[in-house]
Amino acid sequence: MSNTTIKILAKELNLSVATVSKALRDSHEISTETKQKVLALAEKMNYVANPYASSLRKRRSNTIAVVLPEVADSFFSQAINGIESVAQDKGYHVLIYLTHESFTREEAILKEFQSGRVDGILLSVSGETSHSEHIKKVIASGIPIVFFDRVCEDVETAKVITDDFDCGHKAATHLLKQGCERIAFLSVSSYLSISNHRMKGYEKALEDHQLKLNKDDILFCGNDIDENYWIIKNALNKETRPDGIIASVEKFTASIYLACNDLNLSIPGDIKVISFTNLQTALILNPPLTTVTQPAFEMGKTAATVLFKALGKNNSILKNETVIIPSILNIRYSSS
Amino acid sequence: MSNTTIKILAKELNLSVATVSKALRDSHEISTETKQKVLALAEKMNYVANPYASSLRKRRSNTIAVVLPEVADSFFSQAINGIESVAQDKGYHVLIYLTHESFTREEAILKEFQSGRVDGILLSVSGETSHSEHIKKVIASGIPIVFFDRVCEDVETAKVITDDFDCGHKAATHLLKQGCERIAFLSVSSYLSISNHRMKGYEKALEDHQLKLNKDDILFCGNDIDENYWIIKNALNKETRPDGIIASVEKFTASIYLACNDLNLSIPGDIKVISFTNLQTALILNPPLTTVTQPAFEMGKTAATVLFKALGKNNSILKNETVIIPSILNIRYSSS
Repeated sequence: MSNTTIKILAKELNLSVATVSKALRDSHEISTETKQKVLALAEKMNYVANPYASSLRKRRSNTIAVVLPEVADSFFSQAINGIESVAQDKGYHVLIYLTHESFTREEAILKEFQSGRVDGILLSVSGETSHSEHIKKVIASGIPIVFFDRVCEDVETAKVITDDFDCGHKAATHLLKQGCERIAFLSVSSYLSISNHRMKGYEKALEDHQLKLNKDDILFCGNDIDENYWIIKNALNKETRPDGIIASVEKFTASIYLACNDLNLSIPGDIKVISFTNLQTALILNPPLTTVTQPAFEMGKTAATVLFKALGKNNSILKNETVIIPSILNIRYSSS
Repeated sequence: MSNTTIKILAKELNLSVATVSKALRDSHEISTETKQKVLALAEKMNYVANPYASSLRKRRSNTIAVVLPEVADSFFSQAINGIESVAQDKGYHVLIYLTHESFTREEAILKEFQSGRVDGILLSVSGETSHSEHIKKVIASGIPIVFFDRVCEDVETAKVITDDFDCGHKAATHLLKQGCERIAFLSVSSYLSISNHRMKGYEKALEDHQLKLNKDDILFCGNDIDENYWIIKNALNKETRPDGIIASVEKFTASIYLACNDLNLSIPGDIKVISFTNLQTALILNPPLTTVTQPAFEMGKTAATVLFKALGKNNSILKNETVIIPSILNIRYSSS
């Protein structure tokens, strides 16, 4: 970092440290002439204010944290783009923390924030997060949190989500109308808001069609690609197998296609497939994939905008409000 | 943030601020008994050290920056995972900055670092970066930079790359052996190290096969998906069109498949395709895609390891060394 300090500038100019500091902050107590002299030397000597000294003075770090389960997922990477587009405008820095779906990791990350490293937090919880004490503690310490996508409903703060129930309902209804009689639902966790709402929508669609929910048709998959492949393959290899499948998150898509391929099941002939994903490659898959496409960029942007509005007002307690941005069902060949 | 300060702890315990501060830092000057008293109260009152005060004292921020063109790309998202796995271990925080391939943005981001916000930087330059003055200035200010993937060769520091020339050569040689006589090469920028090395490998393969390079077969694509689609479609719609195509970055893949589809060109019958990509969906595309798969996670991990080694030694000037981690050509149906 540049070694020029206010002290050095003051000595060179034969001024007091206080005068130089005020001149750099454009204080009305300092004459225009002095300000110009100080700024000229600061420029010449490549003086840059230490951001941490300035953070301490203002009790502001100009930094927000984004805590999310993973980055190698089109929803989250597009959401980061949305967040970053707002942060960039506001002159804020963005710290990224990945929980890799681990509650312990999420807890450890959040604990650190109580120290004031960041001014606010955008959070999408891990698949293991079954309670929210660690989150409430951070909010109580005066740091605002906005949830996006995966929320804890019992935490009173701002939340930006998509219409998960409706999407689960729409996806299942579409498959039922296409003739499916038994639809499997791939969930990432029994705790997660998004999994549960999407699943409830799916269950309601079955009910609307006078179909009974078969508990075996709810499959829980995880982070391990190979394991997911086997869970799906086993379910599709049974005598009475599903004829439709809804993947509630993107990462199960490849495993479904590969399992069908290896079992010689044709998509959509033997089994119709829908995934929640924003993958650009959905339409060049074999066959093109029917997707629930989430407004990822918009959700990230909106969550960041809500957070910055609170930071601008020095308002650490956010209203308990939920913004819902709808997703779109893009019907393609995999469900036809 | 927690409002308990060292001052408050000192007052409660009737000790000097210096004593409490030393006790919290486990100084040998303080008795075990006093330390225990201080720690017990700190715990009870939820005292957390202000990270910025500590940064100022130590002139360390425990933060690194990762500056990269985009996050919605499987190479970069996997590289971030690799970086984060090391940073997490070292107790470091990771700031992410996206240039969106803009030089102006990269320059503005790097300029801020001269203030000491971060201890070190991992950098993959934008497609517009044609010189490196802004990078050299940051290094001169005492902040170490490690390049990964996209490097500036004239900057003397550590670089972690893959075998770009060999991969371009391997990809083109494979297509030539499969019978291609005219191969188009999709580049992202004429400045980028990766594009140029991959292209030189491709040119060398043509030369090895006594084929003349046709300048029209080098296509420059950008960030805009629609525009890329038209560039590719126009090239494939000419009377004398290429019968092979190499995409030097992932984002061109969908446009190639869609253009071929819309022109009724079969892959691989009419045109054989290879992309540089780590997409999990490569093998379920229609047809499955031949890829050059880069060691993205490993490259991120190695770059971070090199940087942390330097930070551990308080060594801001990194040796001008290049680590090369090879990529793999995965041959699938799109080039058969």
